[in-house]
Amino acid sequence: MIKVGIIGATGYVGAELMRILLNHKKIEISAISSVSFEGQEFESIYKNFFNHTSLVCSSMDEVIAKADVIFTALPHGLSEDIAANCIDSNKICIDLGADFRLSNEEDYKFWYERSFSHPELHKKSVYGLPELNKEKIKDSKLIANPGCYPTSIELGLMPLLLNSLIETKGIICDSKSGATGAGRGLTISSHFPELNENFAPYKVGAHRHTPEIEETLGVMANEKVSVTFTPHLLPINRGIISTIYCTPKGNVNLEEIHKLYESFFLDKPFVNILPLGEIACTKNVRFSNYCNISLHLNHRKDQLIVVSAIDNMVKGAAGQAIQNMNIILGFDETEGLNFISPAF
Amino acid sequence: MIKVGIIGATGYVGAELMRILLNHKKIEISAISSVSFEGQEFESIYKNFFNHTSLVCSSMDEVIAKADVIFTALPHGLSEDIAANCIDSNKICIDLGADFRLSNEEDYKFWYERSFSHPELHKKSVYGLPELNKEKIKDSKLIANPGCYPTSIELGLMPLLLNSLIETKGIICDSKSGATGAGRGLTISSHFPELNENFAPYKVGAHRHTPEIEETLGVMANEKVSVTFTPHLLPINRGIISTIYCTPKGNVNLEEIHKLYESFFLDKPFVNILPLGEIACTKNVRFSNYCNISLHLNHRKDQLIVVSAIDNMVKGAAGQAIQNMNIILGFDETEGLNFISPAF
Amino acid sequence: MIKVGIIGATGYVGAELMRILLNHKKIEISAISSVSFEGQEFESIYKNFFNHTSLVCSSMDEVIAKADVIFTALPHGLSEDIAANCIDSNKICIDLGADFRLSNEEDYKFWYERSFSHPELHKKSVYGLPELNKEKIKDSKLIANPGCYPTSIELGLMPLLLNSLIETKGIICDSKSGATGAGRGLTISSHFPELNENFAPYKVGAHRHTPEIEETLGVMANEKVSVTFTPHLLPINRGIISTIYCTPKGNVNLEEIHKLYESFFLDKPFVNILPLGEIACTKNVRFSNYCNISLHLNHRKDQLIVVSAIDNMVKGAAGQAIQNMNIILGFDETEGLNFISPAF
Amino acid sequence: MIKVGIIGATGYVGAELMRILLNHKKIEISAISSVSFEGQEFESIYKNFFNHTSLVCSSMDEVIAKADVIFTALPHGLSEDIAANCIDSNKICIDLGADFRLSNEEDYKFWYERSFSHPELHKKSVYGLPELNKEKIKDSKLIANPGCYPTSIELGLMPLLLNSLIETKGIICDSKSGATGAGRGLTISSHFPELNENFAPYKVGAHRHTPEIEETLGVMANEKVSVTFTPHLLPINRGIISTIYCTPKGNVNLEEIHKLYESFFLDKPFVNILPLGEIACTKNVRFSNYCNISLHLNHRKDQLIVVSAIDNMVKGAAGQAIQNMNIILGFDETEGLNFISPAF
Repeated sequence: MIKVGIIGATGYVGAELMRILLNHKKIEISAISSVSFEGQEFESIYKNFFNHTSLVCSSMDEVIAKADVIFTALPHGLSEDIAANCIDSNKICIDLGADFRLSNEEDYKFWYERSFSHPELHKKSVYGLPELNKEKIKDSKLIANPGCYPTSIELGLMPLLLNSLIETKGIICDSKSGATGAGRGLTISSHFPELNENFAPYKVGAHRHTPEIEETLGVMANEKVSVTFTPHLLPINRGIISTIYCTPKGNVNLEEIHKLYESFFLDKPFVNILPLGEIACTKNVRFSNYCNISLHLNHRKDQLIVVSAIDNMVKGAAGQAIQNMNIILGFDETEGLNFISPAF
Repeated sequence: MIKVGIIGATGYVGAELMRILLNHKKIEISAISSVSFEGQEFESIYKNFFNHTSLVCSSMDEVIAKADVIFTALPHGLSEDIAANCIDSNKICIDLGADFRLSNEEDYKFWYERSFSHPELHKKSVYGLPELNKEKIKDSKLIANPGCYPTSIELGLMPLLLNSLIETKGIICDSKSGATGAGRGLTISSHFPELNENFAPYKVGAHRHTPEIEETLGVMANEKVSVTFTPHLLPINRGIISTIYCTPKGNVNLEEIHKLYESFFLDKPFVNILPLGEIACTKNVRFSNYCNISLHLNHRKDQLIVVSAIDNMVKGAAGQAIQNMNIILGFDETEGLNFISPAF
Repeated sequence: MIKVGIIGATGYVGAELMRILLNHKKIEISAISSVSFEGQEFESIYKNFFNHTSLVCSSMDEVIAKADVIFTALPHGLSEDIAANCIDSNKICIDLGADFRLSNEEDYKFWYERSFSHPELHKKSVYGLPELNKEKIKDSKLIANPGCYPTSIELGLMPLLLNSLIETKGIICDSKSGATGAGRGLTISSHFPELNENFAPYKVGAHRHTPEIEETLGVMANEKVSVTFTPHLLPINRGIISTIYCTPKGNVNLEEIHKLYESFFLDKPFVNILPLGEIACTKNVRFSNYCNISLHLNHRKDQLIVVSAIDNMVKGAAGQAIQNMNIILGFDETEGLNFISPAF
Repeated sequence: MIKVGIIGATGYVGAELMRILLNHKKIEISAISSVSFEGQEFESIYKNFFNHTSLVCSSMDEVIAKADVIFTALPHGLSEDIAANCIDSNKICIDLGADFRLSNEEDYKFWYERSFSHPELHKKSVYGLPELNKEKIKDSKLIANPGCYPTSIELGLMPLLLNSLIETKGIICDSKSGATGAGRGLTISSHFPELNENFAPYKVGAHRHTPEIEETLGVMANEKVSVTFTPHLLPINRGIISTIYCTPKGNVNLEEIHKLYESFFLDKPFVNILPLGEIACTKNVRFSNYCNISLHLNHRKDQLIVVSAIDNMVKGAAGQAIQNMNIILGFDETEGLNFISPAF
C-alpha cells in the first residue's frame, strides 16, 4: 500500500487531509509532522479524531523518509526546500501552499516579496488543477495545489476563456469565503464575537491570489487576462462563492453557453453545471469535493454572471490535493472523495 | 406632541419602526395596524416589547384618523390607496414599500407587473434619500422611502456621479444582505437549518431594486446609468455590504476622491467616510442609522471599488424613514437616531 | 444485495438516511416515498444530491413492495399501520418515529393522546438502542429507533443504573439540541432571524421524550426512575448535549466510575468515554455516529455530572437506525457509519 | 455634570460601558485608561465608535484624578489597590471584576488562590445587586458589581429563598452564556471555526462564580445554600440562560409562586416576570438591562424550574454597573438604560 505523509498536519489544511486520507482505501498515512506539536499525538490536538488514529507528530525529515507521497501544508516560503528534498529522494510532493503556484518569478517577488529558492524546480512543477492539467499531473512529481479562491474562479471561467467568448480585460471576481480559509491561527478578525454577525471584504482589489488567477486564466485564454478580485470573509466555517462578472464578445445565447459548460465538464467528475434557473450555493458543496457552477445574464443581457461554489477546505485545498494524488498514482480520480454534501 | 401611526406594524420593518419610535422624544405613537394581528396587543406578538407598549393593532382607517404622520410598511401594491387617503386627509405619509420609488411607470410595469393606481400622486412624492433630496423632503407630504440595497449603492456612488468621475455604463454592484431583509414570512430559504452555514446569490442580475438604483444614479449623473446588480443572502440578521466596481474616467487619485467624499458628506450626519486603508463592514453600522463607506483601487489602479455598509433595517428602512420624518417636521435630523453601533 | 426503502424520505431524517445509505456498500436503496413530493425526483428537492441519485418519490406501498428493509421516518401516529403491513409481508421495519418507543400504553395515551392501533405489534417491537439491546435487535423485525434526546441520556447513565450507583429519583437532564431536531417544517421558532443569536428552553419539564427516558432508564435500573427533563433549542444545525445531574449512592470515586464506563463500553464501537478532565462537546461528534461521554463531580463531590454528546441526526436518528439494520442483517455494526467528525 | 472614568476601557466590558455611558444624559466620561492601548484613541480600537468620541486611553492615575465615579473593568486581583486609591481620594468606585464579590476570604483563597490585599475595604464594599441591596448601595462608595452568571441565578431564586419555599441543598444551576462572556482575549475556544456550530459545558461543577452564587443565595435564605453550577458556552454573542432546578418544600402552587414573583419584583424596574406558559429566552433581553424570568413545574410537579435570562454584557456587567451608579448618584434607576431589546 502507498505510504503517504503530511508535513504541517496540525493546521486546518493538514487536519482536513488527515480526515479524508484516514478513510482513503488505497493509501496509508505513514507519518505526519508539525513544528508546533512535535512529539504529541494527533488525536490529543484534534479531539474529533479520538480513537481514529495513533499517529504522533514527528519531524519533516521523518515524514520524507517514511512516505512515498508527501503533502506539504505550510505557510508560503517553507515548501521549496522540502520539495527539493522530496524530488531528490524521488518522492512525490504535493504542495498545498503558494510556493509553486506562480510560474512568473516577477509576480512572485511583487506579491510575496521573495525570490524563488529553487528556480529549476518551478519548471518541473505542475499547477494541480485537474480539470485543466490532468495529463501533465499524471507525469509530475511536484504539484502546486491551487489556491481556494483561484480554484473557484478558474473553473468558473474555463470554458469561456478556452473558447474566447468573453473580453479578457475587466473581469470582476467578487468572492466570499468561510472562516476556515484563514486557518487555525488566532486573530481578532476570527475571534468569535467579532466575526459572528459580521461581514466585510478584505484586501480589496489586492489579494495575493490575484496573480495566480490572472496567470491561469491567461493560460486558458492564451493571452493576458486582467481581473479585479475582492475577497470577503463570511461568518460560516466552510465554503466559497465567487460571483464573476464578464463581458461577452458579441451576442450571448445563455442556453448555448450552458450546453458548452455541460459538455466541457462532462468527463470531469467534480464539476457540476447546474440547470439554467438554479443558483449555486455553498451549502450544496459543503464537505464535498464538488465545484457547482451556475450561469446567468443580467437583465440587459450584456453581462454574463458566473456563480461558482466550492468547499474551500476540500476542492479548495485537501480534496483537490488528494484528487491530484489519485491521478498521479493511477487511482480512480474520485477514490476516497465521493462524499455527498449534507443538506444541513 | 406629534402623533404617529404605523400601518403594517407587525412585519419586521414595522417592528423596527416601533422599537425606534417608542424612544423618540418628540413624537408619540397614537395607533398601529396589522391585518394579520388586528385586535391583538403588539407586545403579545413581539415579546421583546414586554412592558414597553400597550398599543393594540387596529385598522388602517383608525391609524389614518388618529395620526399626523403615517408610516406604511407593506408589500408593494398596497400603499397607493392608503397614501391617497392620507394626502386627502392632509396627513404626511412615509411609505417604506416600493410603490412610489420609481417615477418611470414603464419600469414599474416591467419590474412589478402593475400600473400606477394614482399617477398624480407619483408627481407629488419625493424619493426619501435625505443625502440627495433633503430640501424636497422638507416640503413633501409623501415620501418614497428608498429600498435597502439602493440606499447603500446610491450613497456609495453619489459623489462620483455628481462629479462625472466614472463611466456610467457597466457598474457592477455586488450586494450582500442579512436575513431580516426577507422579512418575517416563513420560507424554506430562511429556515434556520437551510440558511445557517449557507451563502448564495439570488435573483442574479434581475432583482427589482435594479430600476430604482438606475433611476436614482441617473438623476445624480444627469444621464442614463446602467448597473448589474446581484444580491446575496448572508447568514446574519442585519446588515448590507455593497461592493461596487466602477471605471474611472481618466486617471485616478484616490486621495483626491477620498477628500471629495469627506467634504461632500461633511454636513450629512449619517454617512461616515472611513480613512483610506480601512474597510467598511456590517458590524460597525449594525443597529445604527449610519452608512459607512470605504474607497479602494484595484492593484492595476484601473478600477475604483467602493464598499458601502448599512444596517438594512435602520438606514435601509425604519431609521431612514424616521430621518425623513425628522426633516419634514423640522426636528434635528438625528433626533431619536443617534445610536452607537455595538461592537459585539 | 439487500434492498432498502425509506418511507418519508423528504423530511430531514429521511434525507439523512438517504445521504448515509447511498454510500453504504452492502445495501441498495430500491424505493423511497414522500406524501408531499410524490412523483418528484429526490435530487430536485435536496439539490445537494445532484448527480448522486435518480430515485423518484413513489408511494408507501411501492416502497414496501420493493424493499426488504423499510425505514419509516414519519410523524408519530403514522407508522403503526405501515409496520403491520411490513410484518405481514415478512419485511424488516425500522421506525424512526415515536410509535413503538413506549411499551406502556398508559404513558403513550398520556403523552401522545392516542391509543395503540396494533397492541400485539408492540410486543414484537424492540427498542433499538444497540448498546442495551443488541441481542434482541438481532432477532427482531420491528425496531423502535430511540429518540434523539433519550439516546444521549440513556447512554450517559447506563453503567450507573445497571450497577445501582445512583439514586433513581430526582435525576436532572438538561439537554440542548441543534435546530435540525425540529425538522424541515417551517415555524417561526426556526425562522432564521428569530433563532439566530437566540437560545431558550422549550417544553420545560414536559417534553414527550420524558416517558421514553424514564422507561428505558427503569429497565436499566430494574426499578422506577424519575427524571426532570428540559430540552433547549441551540442556534446550530446539529448536535445534542445532555448535561445530567445525579446523586451518587454513598461515596464516589470518579476514577473508578470512569474505569467502569471505559470497560462497559469497550466493545460498543460508537460510544467514546473521554479521559477524565476532558469535556464532551457537540463539535467532536458532528456528522458522526458517536456518542461522546465525559464524567465530572461538582466541587462538593456530592453530585455526579455526566455530559453526553451526539449528533441528533446520526446517532440520534438515521445513523442509529442504520446501526440497527447492520445488526439485524449480520453486517459489521459500523458498516457505512465509520465517519470521522470534521473539526470545523 | 458628574465626571465618570473607566479603567480597563478597551476590554469588552469597558467597551460596553463606553457605549452606554456616551448616551447617558446625566454624566460625562472624563477619562479612560487601558494598559494595552495607552495613548491611542478609543475609536481607533473600536471602530464602531467612529465620530462618537475623541477620548484617548490614558493612565489609571489620570482616570482617578479626573473622575468622580470610577468603573474598573479588570481581571481579578487588579482592582483592590485601585479601589483603595479611589476611596482615599473620596471617589466612588464600581468594580466590575471579582475582587470584592466574596465577603468570605477563605472562599476567595480557595477559588481565586489569593488573599485580600485590603481586608478593611471589603467591609465597606457592597454587593451591587440592586434588587437585593438597593438601600446599601445608595450609601456606598465601593460596589462589587455581581458576576454575570450569579446575577441571572440570584434574581431567579430570590423570592423563593427569601420566603423559604425551597430546599437549600442540591439546587442545580445549568447556565449557558454567549461568547462575549469570555472577553476580547484570543483563545482557541473562541476562534470562530471552533466555536461556530459547537456547544459544550466548561468548568463543569467547578466555576469560580459558584461561591459568589452560594454566598448571595445564603444571604437571601439566611442559611447555607449549596448549588451545583455548570456553565456552557453558546455560539452566540450575547445572553445568558440559567435553567435552575430546585425542590419545593411541601406542596407547590405555581400560580401562587408566580404571583409572589410578580409582586416582589413590581417595584424593581429591570426584572420582568413572564406570564405563566411563556418561557424566557436570550433574544428578548439582548442589548437590554432586563432580567426575564419564567416559572415552571416538571410533569410530576415535584421540581420547580426557574428560567432566568439576561444579556451578560448589560444586566450581567455594564448595565448593572450603571444602574448601581444611578442609585448612588440619586438619578432615576433607569437613566440611560431604558433600551428595548431588538426582536432581530
